[in-house]
Amino acid sequence: MKPVVVTRVERADPAVVAALAGQGVSTVHEAMGRIGLTKPWMRPIYPGAQVAGSAITVLAQPGDNWMLHVAVEQCRPGDVLVVAVTADSTDGMFGDLLATSLQARGVVALVIDAGVRDVASLTQMRFPVWSKAISAKGTVKATLGSVNVPVVCAGALVHPGDVVVADDDGVVIVPRRDAARVAEAGAQRVANEEGKRKRLAAGELGLDIYGMREPLAKAGLRYVETLDDA
Amino acid sequence: MKPVVVTRVERADPAVVAALAGQGVSTVHEAMGRIGLTKPWMRPIYPGAQVAGSAITVLAQPGDNWMLHVAVEQCRPGDVLVVAVTADSTDGMFGDLLATSLQARGVVALVIDAGVRDVASLTQMRFPVWSKAISAKGTVKATLGSVNVPVVCAGALVHPGDVVVADDDGVVIVPRRDAARVAEAGAQRVANEEGKRKRLAAGELGLDIYGMREPLAKAGLRYVETLDDA
Amino acid sequence: MKPVVVTRVERADPAVVAALAGQGVSTVHEAMGRIGLTKPWMRPIYPGAQVAGSAITVLAQPGDNWMLHVAVEQCRPGDVLVVAVTADSTDGMFGDLLATSLQARGVVALVIDAGVRDVASLTQMRFPVWSKAISAKGTVKATLGSVNVPVVCAGALVHPGDVVVADDDGVVIVPRRDAARVAEAGAQRVANEEGKRKRLAAGELGLDIYGMREPLAKAGLRYVETLDDA
Amino acid sequence: MKPVVVTRVERADPAVVAALAGQGVSTVHEAMGRIGLTKPWMRPIYPGAQVAGSAITVLAQPGDNWMLHVAVEQCRPGDVLVVAVTADSTDGMFGDLLATSLQARGVVALVIDAGVRDVASLTQMRFPVWSKAISAKGTVKATLGSVNVPVVCAGALVHPGDVVVADDDGVVIVPRRDAARVAEAGAQRVANEEGKRKRLAAGELGLDIYGMREPLAKAGLRYVETLDDA
Amino acid sequence: MKPVVVTRVERADPAVVAALAGQGVSTVHEAMGRIGLTKPWMRPIYPGAQVAGSAITVLAQPGDNWMLHVAVEQCRPGDVLVVAVTADSTDGMFGDLLATSLQARGVVALVIDAGVRDVASLTQMRFPVWSKAISAKGTVKATLGSVNVPVVCAGALVHPGDVVVADDDGVVIVPRRDAARVAEAGAQRVANEEGKRKRLAAGELGLDIYGMREPLAKAGLRYVETLDDA
Amino acid sequence: MKPVVVTRVERADPAVVAALAGQGVSTVHEAMGRIGLTKPWMRPIYPGAQVAGSAITVLAQPGDNWMLHVAVEQCRPGDVLVVAVTADSTDGMFGDLLATSLQARGVVALVIDAGVRDVASLTQMRFPVWSKAISAKGTVKATLGSVNVPVVCAGALVHPGDVVVADDDGVVIVPRRDAARVAEAGAQRVANEEGKRKRLAAGELGLDIYGMREPLAKAGLRYVETLDDA
Repeated sequence: MKPVVVTRVERADPAVVAALAGQGVSTVHEAMGRIGLTKPWMRPIYPGAQVAGSAITVLAQPGDNWMLHVAVEQCRPGDVLVVAVTADSTDGMFGDLLATSLQARGVVALVIDAGVRDVASLTQMRFPVWSKAISAKGTVKATLGSVNVPVVCAGALVHPGDVVVADDDGVVIVPRRDAARVAEAGAQRVANEEGKRKRLAAGELGLDIYGMREPLAKAGLRYVETLDDA
Repeated sequence: MKPVVVTRVERADPAVVAALAGQGVSTVHEAMGRIGLTKPWMRPIYPGAQVAGSAITVLAQPGDNWMLHVAVEQCRPGDVLVVAVTADSTDGMFGDLLATSLQARGVVALVIDAGVRDVASLTQMRFPVWSKAISAKGTVKATLGSVNVPVVCAGALVHPGDVVVADDDGVVIVPRRDAARVAEAGAQRVANEEGKRKRLAAGELGLDIYGMREPLAKAGLRYVETLDDA
Repeated sequence: MKPVVVTRVERADPAVVAALAGQGVSTVHEAMGRIGLTKPWMRPIYPGAQVAGSAITVLAQPGDNWMLHVAVEQCRPGDVLVVAVTADSTDGMFGDLLATSLQARGVVALVIDAGVRDVASLTQMRFPVWSKAISAKGTVKATLGSVNVPVVCAGALVHPGDVVVADDDGVVIVPRRDAARVAEAGAQRVANEEGKRKRLAAGELGLDIYGMREPLAKAGLRYVETLDDA
Repeated sequence: MKPVVVTRVERADPAVVAALAGQGVSTVHEAMGRIGLTKPWMRPIYPGAQVAGSAITVLAQPGDNWMLHVAVEQCRPGDVLVVAVTADSTDGMFGDLLATSLQARGVVALVIDAGVRDVASLTQMRFPVWSKAISAKGTVKATLGSVNVPVVCAGALVHPGDVVVADDDGVVIVPRRDAARVAEAGAQRVANEEGKRKRLAAGELGLDIYGMREPLAKAGLRYVETLDDA
Repeated sequence: MKPVVVTRVERADPAVVAALAGQGVSTVHEAMGRIGLTKPWMRPIYPGAQVAGSAITVLAQPGDNWMLHVAVEQCRPGDVLVVAVTADSTDGMFGDLLATSLQARGVVALVIDAGVRDVASLTQMRFPVWSKAISAKGTVKATLGSVNVPVVCAGALVHPGDVVVADDDGVVIVPRRDAARVAEAGAQRVANEEGKRKRLAAGELGLDIYGMREPLAKAGLRYVETLDDA
Repeated sequence: MKPVVVTRVERADPAVVAALAGQGVSTVHEAMGRIGLTKPWMRPIYPGAQVAGSAITVLAQPGDNWMLHVAVEQCRPGDVLVVAVTADSTDGMFGDLLATSLQARGVVALVIDAGVRDVASLTQMRFPVWSKAISAKGTVKATLGSVNVPVVCAGALVHPGDVVVADDDGVVIVPRRDAARVAEAGAQRVANEEGKRKRLAAGELGLDIYGMREPLAKAGLRYVETLDDA
């Protein structure tokens, strides 16, 4: 594939993006049918951030952050920069200068399957990053990659314009065309859980609420007083 | 082994459990003779929690949290739910609804050799979890496991009713029958350390307090001014 | 190599050490020419600490912390204790008693390529530790090692008296003889970045500030509206 | 995404597939522009196999091999079965019975981002497998997945009908539409390397063959007799 | 726990042990109900060995192989030495001298959750070892452990006298009391698989042999010609 | 550090190098006092090679093999090329063309803390490589590093001219000045082990040969018939 920057990116409806941000990763992942997650090695640099935005994607070479500078120009307010690397790397490809530039353009977060540095500054700036590692290792600017091509980031396929939802549970990617449908399913799920939460808090058992006793018995589960009775 | 739920669990004396909670993991581990720890990959989802409780054990299939719902019913106030899985998994088998249910029953913590999700909510609820991973990955409810059988959780053998002690240093399992003896040994250790802490804070050296100079010399340790003298 | 304690350690100028502490790991690492970092698995036990000091080195056996007690005596105010182990280990070789002793001697931090315990106490004491693991596993005092010999700690070569800089981004080792030169280069780098930060915050692009457009075009980067145009 | 089996798969020209098989993974990866590799954790169960085939893809649940049985029916002679899992798992989802069935249908290999078992039998059968792990852990048949949808397998995006090339260096995925072009570029590369191999074997240096001396000097490389001269 | 050597070990019937050896790890694991495996990081040092024997257990300290020498004396012909360590270690605790001693006593294999060395010699001697690592790192003989106490080895609970089955798929532990029953179930499984293997080799599909089509349809699986039809 | 190639390397006596090759890694490591090993992740690409040679060192950037081409010119017959990287990388920095060039110059092996490719060809050529990974991932030639400076390779400090010993147990580095002394100590160790091997093969116990019974009893080891007696 020749290095390329794709300049036109269709984005999801901002209201849908906001709805997904509010629901959070675990709910959105369930609403999508339990797919779309990045690997659990992707962790936030500080706890408590919960965001969603449209993906601007970067395919970079390991140890080379040239294309991140290129990508900044393609970002708009509400975007999330998503960086994939052609081989495993923990190098610190991103720091507080790039974050300053992204914040100036209204970008809401970075998701990078590599390392990040200046995390104390990034925390003070409240610029959230989900990364594979924290590392001061600097990078070169020597080899081209691409911007806004489909990438695999930490095991998840991301197309430019897909909705990226991220919080303390990790990161999930919602295909742009499915975003409205997923947001609706997620809203139902949230509403549905609220009632269950109250019943559980009141001491009712999930065994009863979910009607599990019969299928468990049918599957062969036995209750015994001691293991010798088993 | 056929799937089974054992309903009768003998628990340790609550006063002993409280004593062990106060001593913390490192002290209890030393008092036991340096055994009983789970692997260091087991980490708390938020810092500062320090608990102890009686183990209710679950042996689950990877990616399947059906038996956690079954286990809730077997829990009493002061228990800790301990989940082992038959194969390595980071799936998020536990979230805020199950935590609500456990809190309603007085359970004090979860220890799970797999993933957990909804960690922002769990942190707000102050329901502490020690886990191998944080992951939004949802699970199915399709295959039976067992409740209150002996399990190996993150490398540690746990019998139902054993005392689970957990804090920022990790998790240690105290066999129920040894709990009183260990608590006593731990208390002595705490008392003993207090005196040493004061002497060390005052500038005395461990070399002198512990009488190490002679055994070090006997083992052959030499002091030289520069490496060329060695 | 015979076990030995080297008692004479030349240290860097305290003013230089202080300057390096203020610049932080990422800046110092760049100022050195992008070398000197320990592996990214070395993480602080609590966020926010930023220190520098002169290295007192320990080469210990896995699971044996005898030589740490020996090393305490060799420490002076402003030092950082650096512990390397002859084989991979996550055992908790260091806890709050040793930290009390080190604090009494004015030591500012511990860097250990193994485990640490009592992390809740260490956090309360504000004694910062960068380690490979947190583990309650206790250690024996049975086999000699050495103090103040050159060691490889988490992939980085450390000579006694080298300057250790550590913060939330990790740990970097500055050879003593290079310390003044590196501090100077780091100061220039900080000054230089300040101007760029302001321009980036004002919305200027790195592409323009760093003059990247021409080299990117020369390297063959193309801009297209859609991927079908590529 | 609803569980689905897609029955129509377009495959690449068998002559192109055979050409790619002969070139091997490293050459094909270079010919594609250094992309398309699965993660290096994917290793063959025995050395010496070198194959290529058309991908039949499976998206399975961790610990559940139901969909592999479904996928067998979709395979034709010359295909490679590619299995992705919705979450990390090392369970042994594949063994000698499934291999017998695949061999009966002319399938040439399995690529699975999970575990495999019966490896002694598979080796005797000369049925090559590239997997993430070897594990006897059995799986259930309880939850649906999909067959012949695009999947991410060990970090690589695979569409049904893409050409899978695998040897002792790992696995590379060639998009079906690029296969002929890549095979041609690979053939040129092989021819080109042959001449270089002879010159290198005769003692000529790559520095001279590739004309590196000038760019190295331009980049600032200096030759000194001892490090003190540096 | 005080260091102790338990001298009386009940062993399983040699005919049962031989039957389990012949069935291999994957079959035995299934016959037990899919439990009893050690972690998949336990790998043989050379391919092709397939053994079973009665467990003599060792609980050792990391980096210390003193108790292995003690354990040799407790071994009888047909035993397998199983070594667990109180903390993670890859040190080479076992080499060709200890293997010579074990072979002289008729021990058939070593299973060790740590490192092994002299693997070229061990391969020539045909003394099979399943280990977590290969490492030349030598160990000390300084701290006691125990022999023939229950241990957790690579995640599996092992009692002295349990039957250890090991082959290229890994290691499985069969409790002594269950051994005869498991061997019988395993034999049935082997017989049962033979018929299926022939039918699969002849081209019949598992979908039909196992009657999966109806449950798949019931679970909602749909067949479509292209993804656009989904 | 400025990029530099040091052209003058002092090498150890070839007779000493040959003696160390014959003794192998585990013996040499013990003869040195149990230091000098690289991490156990360094594994040979095929079993059975056992070599020693003088180190020519490379410090390379991750994903960039430019300096390997530079290093070839500095190699002489009997050398071992040792490659360290400034940050973790598994990229395939070395393949059969570079191996052809090294073999033409009489180089006996490669030790690389990164990836290698063309392993089938390298195996056929009998050019042994110890590496961290096998990966087809190609690299660029864009950034300078250094040749023949001291490097840390997989945790071991290597100076140019040090003796590198490698076999199936891993890799050990012998400082050039210590080589003769270590070879002598190794020879004694080999002679010493021969006698022990014969006695152990004849059924004598290490407990008796090494006189361990008394120190074990003194350390408190007790023998009991059953665990209940403990």
